[in-house]
Amino acid sequence: MSAIAVADSQKEKAITNDAGLRGQSAGSTSLCTVGKTGTGLTYRGYDITDLAHYAEFEEVAYLLLKGKLPTQSELDNYKRALKSNRGLPSALCQVLEAIPADAHPMDVMRTGCSMLGNLDQEMDFAEQGEKTDNLLAMLPAIICYWYRYSHHGVRIDTASSDQDTIGGYFLEMLTDKAPSELHKQAMHCSLVLYAEHEFNASTFTARVCASTLSDIHSCITAAIGSLRGPLHGGANEAAMAMIEQWQSADEAEAGIMQMLANKAKIMGFGHAIYRQSDPRNALIKEWSRKLAQDVGDTHLFAVSERVEQVMKREKGLFANADFFHASAYHFMGIPTKLFTPIFVMSRVTGWAAHVFEQRANNRIIRPSADYEGPDHQDWLPIDQRTSAK
Amino acid sequence: MSAIAVADSQKEKAITNDAGLRGQSAGSTSLCTVGKTGTGLTYRGYDITDLAHYAEFEEVAYLLLKGKLPTQSELDNYKRALKSNRGLPSALCQVLEAIPADAHPMDVMRTGCSMLGNLDQEMDFAEQGEKTDNLLAMLPAIICYWYRYSHHGVRIDTASSDQDTIGGYFLEMLTDKAPSELHKQAMHCSLVLYAEHEFNASTFTARVCASTLSDIHSCITAAIGSLRGPLHGGANEAAMAMIEQWQSADEAEAGIMQMLANKAKIMGFGHAIYRQSDPRNALIKEWSRKLAQDVGDTHLFAVSERVEQVMKREKGLFANADFFHASAYHFMGIPTKLFTPIFVMSRVTGWAAHVFEQRANNRIIRPSADYEGPDHQDWLPIDQRTSAK
Repeated sequence: MSAIAVADSQKEKAITNDAGLRGQSAGSTSLCTVGKTGTGLTYRGYDITDLAHYAEFEEVAYLLLKGKLPTQSELDNYKRALKSNRGLPSALCQVLEAIPADAHPMDVMRTGCSMLGNLDQEMDFAEQGEKTDNLLAMLPAIICYWYRYSHHGVRIDTASSDQDTIGGYFLEMLTDKAPSELHKQAMHCSLVLYAEHEFNASTFTARVCASTLSDIHSCITAAIGSLRGPLHGGANEAAMAMIEQWQSADEAEAGIMQMLANKAKIMGFGHAIYRQSDPRNALIKEWSRKLAQDVGDTHLFAVSERVEQVMKREKGLFANADFFHASAYHFMGIPTKLFTPIFVMSRVTGWAAHVFEQRANNRIIRPSADYEGPDHQDWLPIDQRTSAK
Repeated sequence: MSAIAVADSQKEKAITNDAGLRGQSAGSTSLCTVGKTGTGLTYRGYDITDLAHYAEFEEVAYLLLKGKLPTQSELDNYKRALKSNRGLPSALCQVLEAIPADAHPMDVMRTGCSMLGNLDQEMDFAEQGEKTDNLLAMLPAIICYWYRYSHHGVRIDTASSDQDTIGGYFLEMLTDKAPSELHKQAMHCSLVLYAEHEFNASTFTARVCASTLSDIHSCITAAIGSLRGPLHGGANEAAMAMIEQWQSADEAEAGIMQMLANKAKIMGFGHAIYRQSDPRNALIKEWSRKLAQDVGDTHLFAVSERVEQVMKREKGLFANADFFHASAYHFMGIPTKLFTPIFVMSRVTGWAAHVFEQRANNRIIRPSADYEGPDHQDWLPIDQRTSAK
């Protein structure tokens, strides 16, 4: 069952169902606004466009996790600390080596994060910042160690890189060579765009988990599990699977028209909250355009742009953050199945910041349910039952 | 920071906070009613008292997961299938051996479940029943394999037991000897009582994760992370830590009166939903009494009973399911730190049944948040920032 097929069949059901807590407040946050004006996105009051243009990802991580933008020396110290924490414990390497090459990379991220909880356990909430920084440093190492070992038979030294940013480090660990400045800048922008998004399903998962006063690794592990779903973090991978079928913009237009006629779900368009546009789209689209020129792309950017035009024209739907991420990552040579793990490397900042918030003013999240089951059933001894239901 | 201290400090905060979705419906279910009459608990319409008296745990698992009580041959086949799936894959054993003895046992359960997702991946929702049965069979094996290896240096053969029930199997794997009939019966009752409880925090976590259409291992892994929290699954361990301090009922009464005077939180009393009593208390209390007689207990049952009386008299609070579970497990020789993992072995049935329900009528669970953060912030170049917040 493909992600697209699942998403589509569920989409149909969703139309008759007004559940999902849509529009209901499940708490308060100081971290983020999404679509307040129909289109805007802010992290602690800063506009996503400013952050994407001017901030390093590590600056944004600092802003989300520590509450303010860092000074230069604070940022330098923070990046140095993250860089020094990339070496994976040997027991974690042993676990990653036990995971087969055909595993789902999000299962690898989830398992690596959970395993780290056994080795670097949060014993007191006073340690939450330190444990989060360790996760932020190690999650790129976890996916690259597993990928290179299972796919290339290489045991990488995850502490060996001189790259001083998470984006540069990930690209170097993945490809075994220092990335170009262009690729590093594109990764930084991508990580900034994916860092935080209010009470989306994975973040809400982390907050429900946090509300039992569980540890940070449980919360992040749970969130990774939710992000894995094709209705959530899998959208950029599904968009890639779609656009790579087509060799020209015209072919893409014909393909999309056919998909629309078949009422197929087109991944990477529209949004649960934004009504006019997704502010992240224009930002990542420009990077996709630059990366296409850099790599000498002959058609994939044109295909993507045509799909965007046709979706606007035919359905009035805008491209969301995921759509041009697909081509951007592809132009950097990143395997499609690693797209969602990159999302994790970034969103761990938002997830953790929400866990801190939940802990600071907690009540266990325990909603009610509408009962639709049978009324009282008399007990029936086993020898009087029949196999018909 | 102890679980009790955490719970208490958070309890104070909770009083000023009406969040946590309390009383708000987050969906519908046919699985369970909790406290509809102030006290009742039903699984698919069957009263918990009938189930605890007459049903095997595997019958209840069948009821929850497959929608009806089994006939004798259906139950026999089901138990045979579960028994045949207990052998852990070698890659999973390798992971469990990498987890140190001082790890939190719930971190072991979470990591074991997550790792199994790499080895037994759910590729299609049509496999959900089979994957759940594998989890149900393997979760007791996972905790016992790790415990015996890390604590006793023994590699157990998890497929070797002749025990045909999950309760009997767990006790045999843990102690390396066949359990008494009394212990097996007590375990069955305990597993029945913990199997399902509507939209509690861990089950709701599983449903939020399922709503992204993620896989079953992600959902169960996430739920384990939530159950780990001291406000949720940790209550029976906290109750044990409290009662084992006292050597007599009078000493317990003095201790409780002192704790109440200090406004300390007493774990194992009261409930978010039940108003009059927790129907599971009387059921597990009777097992605790029988097990106390069997083991020749001189004071722990009397201590527990006195604590129950004092809490009723002083605060009007009733013992919940967790309180007499502490002494019952203790009388069977189960180490305190394995109490919450037993909860997982049972509740996996309810979690999975809720995942199936969520999938059958899904909309992604994505609530809103009340924004309390700063208004628009102008971007400030890094060289103009100061280290004051």
